[in-house]
This record gives sequence, structure tokens and C-alpha cells, in this order.
Amino acid sequence: MQHTAPDPQTITDPQALADAVGAAMWARDHAAHALGMRLDAIAPGQAQLSMTVRHDMLNGHAICHGGMIFTLADTAFAYACNSDNHNTVASACHIDFLAPAHEGDQLQATAQVRIQGGRMGVYDITVRNLTSQKDIVLFRGKSHRIQGLVTDTLNTDKPGAPA
Amino acid sequence: MQHTAPDPQTITDPQALADAVGAAMWARDHAAHALGMRLDAIAPGQAQLSMTVRHDMLNGHAICHGGMIFTLADTAFAYACNSDNHNTVASACHIDFLAPAHEGDQLQATAQVRIQGGRMGVYDITVRNLTSQKDIVLFRGKSHRIQGLVTDTLNTDKPGAPA
Amino acid sequence: MQHTAPDPQTITDPQALADAVGAAMWARDHAAHALGMRLDAIAPGQAQLSMTVRHDMLNGHAICHGGMIFTLADTAFAYACNSDNHNTVASACHIDFLAPAHEGDQLQATAQVRIQGGRMGVYDITVRNLTSQKDIVLFRGKSHRIQGLVTDTLNTDKPGAPA
Amino acid sequence: MQHTAPDPQTITDPQALADAVGAAMWARDHAAHALGMRLDAIAPGQAQLSMTVRHDMLNGHAICHGGMIFTLADTAFAYACNSDNHNTVASACHIDFLAPAHEGDQLQATAQVRIQGGRMGVYDITVRNLTSQKDIVLFRGKSHRIQGLVTDTLNTDKPGAPA
Repeated sequence: MQHTAPDPQTITDPQALADAVGAAMWARDHAAHALGMRLDAIAPGQAQLSMTVRHDMLNGHAICHGGMIFTLADTAFAYACNSDNHNTVASACHIDFLAPAHEGDQLQATAQVRIQGGRMGVYDITVRNLTSQKDIVLFRGKSHRIQGLVTDTLNTDKPGAPA
Repeated sequence: MQHTAPDPQTITDPQALADAVGAAMWARDHAAHALGMRLDAIAPGQAQLSMTVRHDMLNGHAICHGGMIFTLADTAFAYACNSDNHNTVASACHIDFLAPAHEGDQLQATAQVRIQGGRMGVYDITVRNLTSQKDIVLFRGKSHRIQGLVTDTLNTDKPGAPA
Repeated sequence: MQHTAPDPQTITDPQALADAVGAAMWARDHAAHALGMRLDAIAPGQAQLSMTVRHDMLNGHAICHGGMIFTLADTAFAYACNSDNHNTVASACHIDFLAPAHEGDQLQATAQVRIQGGRMGVYDITVRNLTSQKDIVLFRGKSHRIQGLVTDTLNTDKPGAPA
Repeated sequence: MQHTAPDPQTITDPQALADAVGAAMWARDHAAHALGMRLDAIAPGQAQLSMTVRHDMLNGHAICHGGMIFTLADTAFAYACNSDNHNTVASACHIDFLAPAHEGDQLQATAQVRIQGGRMGVYDITVRNLTSQKDIVLFRGKSHRIQGLVTDTLNTDKPGAPA
């Protein structure tokens, strides 16, 4: 098996590390793929993803399900808070819904670190409806570092390997 | 076109009304269907839905995407806060993640009204992992009533009708 | 100096331990005293405190400052989450304001554990206006255990001792 | 009775209006005065207040009571969201505690509008410990406009007038 990419553990440049982590996470982010997300950008403590509202994302009020918008924001949060290669999960999130989104709308989530200290971090994510040119969601996420490196965890994602 | 079901606006029994609203919402809840949710129960101010964690719900850490668990909880919230037939949307939600969920796990969200006064309500939702027998998410949602009745809105969900 | 109270570290009954912790915390809870709070009850994972809205608790709208109601709820949270004698602090709180309170109103906060696992806990606190007989605040607090025992920490509260 | 200040309802400059509203609110903000707060600055959608941690603000852990820090942040929130003279109250707040504060520490809260649309607004407040040079609290508040103008309401704050 050939590797052309450098071992992430040897990368010292923060942007190069964020790129490597983003690529590794993206390769197996089944939920993001199922929802048709696009990873627009990643940088240390930052990430930007976008998604088009599909018919199968509408709820019983014929607007985009809030959970779908949350999922886009939460995904941007995940890429931002894992961007330095420490395995990190969400411990709590708070979301304010400002306006609805409709089928066909282009949504973009932008995540930015506010605080990262010790094992705890706080990240702010804004979801903008590029179609209506309005911010439709403000999301704040609290992250918690667990053991291991993102790129190590990803190596276990082979058939038969423990998750 | 024949109708055997009663007009929801004539229903006075709260449980019968909740059943009618639940059936009407469910008929066009595309997001819930796409995620394989089941509407287990609905009652005035209460709802219970369940979902099995699928492979396409996993994130880059190989655990169930937090957004998918949020979406299950948010859906239970929606059925509970619309159960009296007033069109109601989420204005804000807070979620605490207590434990991860894995592929194949059976999740169940139970929503219960805490306060419903004027146009504002607060609902508590707990997501239980029936496989591990643990509560994995605590979710609190704030709802906001908008104009119209759920069952009226649903009548507009015909081809060509405005959403 | 004579001690008639047992050493808290030797107490095995959860209620007796909660009583001992509550008494020890109360003895130096300067903020609670300054606001005229009363510790009505404490039990394992639970606490109840009350407070009368004073003139010096009113804000620029001539209603009770939201921060004063928060402080009552947060205090009940603190007694509940420390009730087993592990030093525990708040990591995050979410508060929904349902109705205002006025000068002279009697407020009572009731705290109840929802989850306590490892170092993290989630507690629900309700503030009831006993004068209007309405719940006026719903509060959810996330706690984080730090090192040490409450009763040990308290022993350091002597003149000149480090806080 | 002589007036040297202009009638706030005739002020068209946003900064002059914010100044007038701030002065009017401050004149009767009993809670802010009781806690020794200082109104450092107010501008449209923004406010900055500071406070010194006093002995009577300490809790049972001998650190500043979280409710006191919340109250400082909430006060900055109130001045920011009322700065255009529409009576506005908090409907919900979320606070993340990042680090403790100790007796004698100088705390400063800075509030900034994120969204103000219709009757609902979202404001971000950061509390910085000027002594330790660290941000110790991130606070997000959701505001709700009620009827009336701040400066009208304040006119009723005379002996015997209804609050």
C-alpha cells in the first residue's frame, strides 16, 4: 500500500495539519455525504461547509427541518474543533433559529473558535442562507477533547476494525 | 375525493385532536421518513419517536452524528408542541450530549411540555438509547406559535401550492 | 474549640452527608446571605432555596433583575450538585425567563439532578413565584467536578488561608 | 420643573439616543448600584459595564458566585438591547463559565448585538477578568421587545406610580 500523503503526526504547520485532518475526517463522514454537504474550507479553529435544502429535508410545515440545519452547523463545529488533530466531541450545543429555509436554498455554515483551553472549547457557528442573503441560525457549541488523534482513529476505519 | 376522517377543526377531544394533527404532520414529514423514524405516540403536549442508527448517520469519528440525534429529539419536540393544532416552530434549542450512539442502536425520543403560555412554550425531550439502556441526550426546546392551524397548512401541500 | 458534629468524611448515609455539606457550604456562602436567601431543604442531588425580591434587586425596568433570579436558581443548583461532598462547579447554564417578578414577591428555587455520571452532571432547576403561584424561570445547569471534598475546602476558609 | 435634557423621543441620532436611554436606565438600576457596577460605555446595540468582586459576592467555594458574574453580563445585555429606546427584556440566556474569579478581581462585560429583527434579538456578551487578563464567561442572550419606550417607562418611577 502506497502513501503519498505525509504522516499527519509529523506535520507541524497548523494549516497543513488542519487540511490533513479535514481530508481524513471527510473520507468517512457518512452523514455529511448523505446530506450532500460540501467542505468548503478548513483552517486552524475554523471550518466552512455548505448544503442545498432538498425535498427530503422538509418537515411537516413544508420548511427545512431544524435538525437538518443543526446538522450542517454541528458538522462545521466538528471540523473546526478537531482541526488540530485531537479527537474532540460535542458536549453541548445551543441553537437560535432566526428564519426558516426552503427547498432549494443554499445554506452555508461558518465555524470559528472562541476559546480553546485544556480539554474544553467553545465555538461559534453561523448559518447563512446564501439564497436569501440572511443569517438564519446562530449556534454555539461546547467541545470536549477525548483521547487519541483524529488521524489515528481514522486508521481503524477498515472492515473488521473496531470503531 | 372522499374524506372519512373528521375535519380537525371540529375535534374537541384533546387526544383525538393530537392524533389528527400527528397523522397530518406525519403524512408529509419528508425528513422524518428519510431518516427512518417511527412515530410511536402522540398526546396533548407529548410525543414519542424512535429511530435506528444507520451507517449513513455516522460521522468522522465513526459514531452517530450528533445532528442525527438532535433531529430525532427536535422531531419529537415538533409533534409535542404542535399537538393542539396551532402552527408552532422552534425558536431555540439546547442539547446536552451525555454518551455516544453506535450503528444499529435503537434510539427513542420522548417529548413533554413544561410550559405552554401565550405564544411561547418550553418542552423537555430525552433521548434514550434502548440498546444500551442509557439516556444519551437531554434537549430543551423553546417554541413559538405562528399564524394558522397545522391542518390548514397541510391542506396547501398539493402540487403547485405555495409552501 | 469544640466539635460536636461528626467528621463529614466518615458519614455514610447520603442524607446525613447532604445535611453536613449543606451546613458547611451555608456557613460561608456570603453571596447567598447578602441576598437574604434561605436554605429550605437539601437532599442527595436536590436542594430548595427561597428569597424575597428586595428594592435593591430591581433593574431599570422596575422589575426584579434577571441576574438576581438566576443567582437564586444557580445557588440551588450548587447545593444540589455538591450534596455528595465532591467539589463541583457550574460549567454552563441555560435559563428561560417565563414571567417577571416584582418587589416583595417570594421566590423559591427547586433543584433536581437529572444525570450525574463521572465528573459531569445535569441539573434542572425551577423558580416558582410563590406570590403569583407561577413558575417564572426554567434553568438547566451543567456541572463539573473538580478535585477535593467540599468539607475539606471549607476548612481552609480561615483568615489568611488561601481560597 | 425644569428640563435641561432633550426629550428622548425627539432624538434622532442613534448614539445620542443610546446615551439618553443609558442615563435614564442607570438612574434607577438599583441592582446594578447595589453590586457596585459602573456603566463604562453605551452605544447602539452595545454596552460595557464593570464590577469589582467583593467579599459578599463569594460563594461556598470561596470564589465569586456565578450568579454575580451572570448579573454583570445580563446587565450589559440589558443596556445593549434597550439602547434604541424600545422596552426590551431577556427571554433566555446561555452562559459558559470558563474560569473562576476571586475577591478583588476587576470584571468587565462587553455586550454586542448579533441580530435585531422584529421583536427578537440575539446579543453576545463576554466577561473579561481584567486582573487575570482572561475571558472568564461567554454569554448569549435572546431579547424580546415588549410595549412602550424605555424613557416613558422611566417616567412612571415616581413614588406611588405603578411599576
